[in-house]
Amino acid sequence: MNNIERLLAIEGIKTTKARYFRCLDTKDLAGYASVFAPDAVMDMRGESRDGEGLVSGAGNIASFVLGSVSGLSTVHHGHMPEIEFSSDTSASVIWAMEDKLWKVDDAAAVVPFSTLHGYGHYHETYVRIEDQWLIRTITLMRLRVDIS
Amino acid sequence: MNNIERLLAIEGIKTTKARYFRCLDTKDLAGYASVFAPDAVMDMRGESRDGEGLVSGAGNIASFVLGSVSGLSTVHHGHMPEIEFSSDTSASVIWAMEDKLWKVDDAAAVVPFSTLHGYGHYHETYVRIEDQWLIRTITLMRLRVDIS
Amino acid sequence: MNNIERLLAIEGIKTTKARYFRCLDTKDLAGYASVFAPDAVMDMRGESRDGEGLVSGAGNIASFVLGSVSGLSTVHHGHMPEIEFSSDTSASVIWAMEDKLWKVDDAAAVVPFSTLHGYGHYHETYVRIEDQWLIRTITLMRLRVDIS
Repeated sequence: MNNIERLLAIEGIKTTKARYFRCLDTKDLAGYASVFAPDAVMDMRGESRDGEGLVSGAGNIASFVLGSVSGLSTVHHGHMPEIEFSSDTSASVIWAMEDKLWKVDDAAAVVPFSTLHGYGHYHETYVRIEDQWLIRTITLMRLRVDIS
Repeated sequence: MNNIERLLAIEGIKTTKARYFRCLDTKDLAGYASVFAPDAVMDMRGESRDGEGLVSGAGNIASFVLGSVSGLSTVHHGHMPEIEFSSDTSASVIWAMEDKLWKVDDAAAVVPFSTLHGYGHYHETYVRIEDQWLIRTITLMRLRVDIS
Repeated sequence: MNNIERLLAIEGIKTTKARYFRCLDTKDLAGYASVFAPDAVMDMRGESRDGEGLVSGAGNIASFVLGSVSGLSTVHHGHMPEIEFSSDTSASVIWAMEDKLWKVDDAAAVVPFSTLHGYGHYHETYVRIEDQWLIRTITLMRLRVDIS
C-alpha cells in the first residue's frame, strides 16, 4: 500500500468496528454479521463459565453474540486503536473497550448477574475482502469485570 | 473529492465534534456555538418532558444547551464515528455517546434529577462552509438513561 | 508537511496515545516509557495533595506514574483529540479522558481512597523524533473527580 491507501485502510477498519459496536447495542443481527469475514473466528471462552465461546463463521458469531445479550440492555464502547498492517489485505488491531450490561427481561436473559461493567482490550485481525475491511479473528483480554 | 480531500474532511469532522464536546463540558458558549452552521437545527425533543427541544440557529442552540446544563457538572464523551459523504460539502455521521450530569447548584439547575447517566447515538449531518465542517443537524437516539 | 504527511502525523499521534493508555493500564513500564520524548515533562501537581508531580525524563515519568498506581487496578480511556501542528515536528493536542482506579492491594497502594472516578482533558505537546511522535509535555485539567 502507498500512504494514501494505508490511511484509507485505517479509516475503513475504524468504520467497520464502529458498526460492530452500534449493531451490537441496537441488536441489529444482520448489521452485526456484516462486519465479520465469512470464515471469522471469535474466541470468547475467557468470558464464559463453561468454557464455551469459540465460534466460527460470521452468521454463527452473530447468532451466538446476539443470543448472549438476549434480555439485556447493553452498551459497548471502543477506544484508541493500535493498527498494524501485516500485508496489503491484513492487519492486527488492539482496541480499548468498556461494556455495560443490564438485565431487563428475566425470562429471556441467560446471564448470572443483574448488571455487568467490564473493561479490557479486543485483540483482533482484519482482512480486506474487495473494498471492505472485515474482522477475521477477535478475542478479548479483560482488565476488570464488576458484576452485581 | 479525491482520496486525500476525503481523508482531510474526515479529520475535519472529527475535530469539530471534539470541540463540540470540550466546549459543552467546559461551558464555553462561544466555542460551542462555533461548531454549528448558521442555520443548524437541533432536535432534542426526545430528551425533554414537555416536548420542547427543537431549536434553530447556532446561537440559539448554544444558548439552549448551555442553559439546559446550568447548575450542572457535565461529562459528554463521543466514540467511533460512521461518516458518509453525500457530496463534497455534506456528510452524515453517527457517533456513539455517553453523558453524565450531576446537579451541583440547586438554585441554577432546572432538571428533575440529582444525577443522570445516559448512552446513545448522535445522528448528525455536517456541511462544509469554507474550510470548516460544521454541524448542520443533530438529534440523539438513546440506548438507555439512568437517573437518580 | 504536505497533506499526506499531515494525515500520517495525525495517525502517528493517535497511535502513540493509544499505547500510552494500554501500557498504563496493563502496567507495562517499558512500553509506557517509550511513548515519551527523552526530555519529556509531566506536570501532575494538580493531582497531588502535597504539591509533588512535576517530573522530567521518560524513564522518571514512567517510574513515577507506574509507582503511583502500584496496588491499584486502573482503567484510563482517551477520546476525541484536537490536534494542531506548530511545525513539521511539533504539535499541541487536547484529549478528553476518563479514569477509574480501584485499590486492590492495601499494602502496595499509597492512595487515600478506595476508588477514584475522574474526568478531564489532557493538554499535551508532541515532538517528532525520527519517525515517531512522542509526548513532550503533558498535564491534566480536571472536570470532576469522585472518590470513595
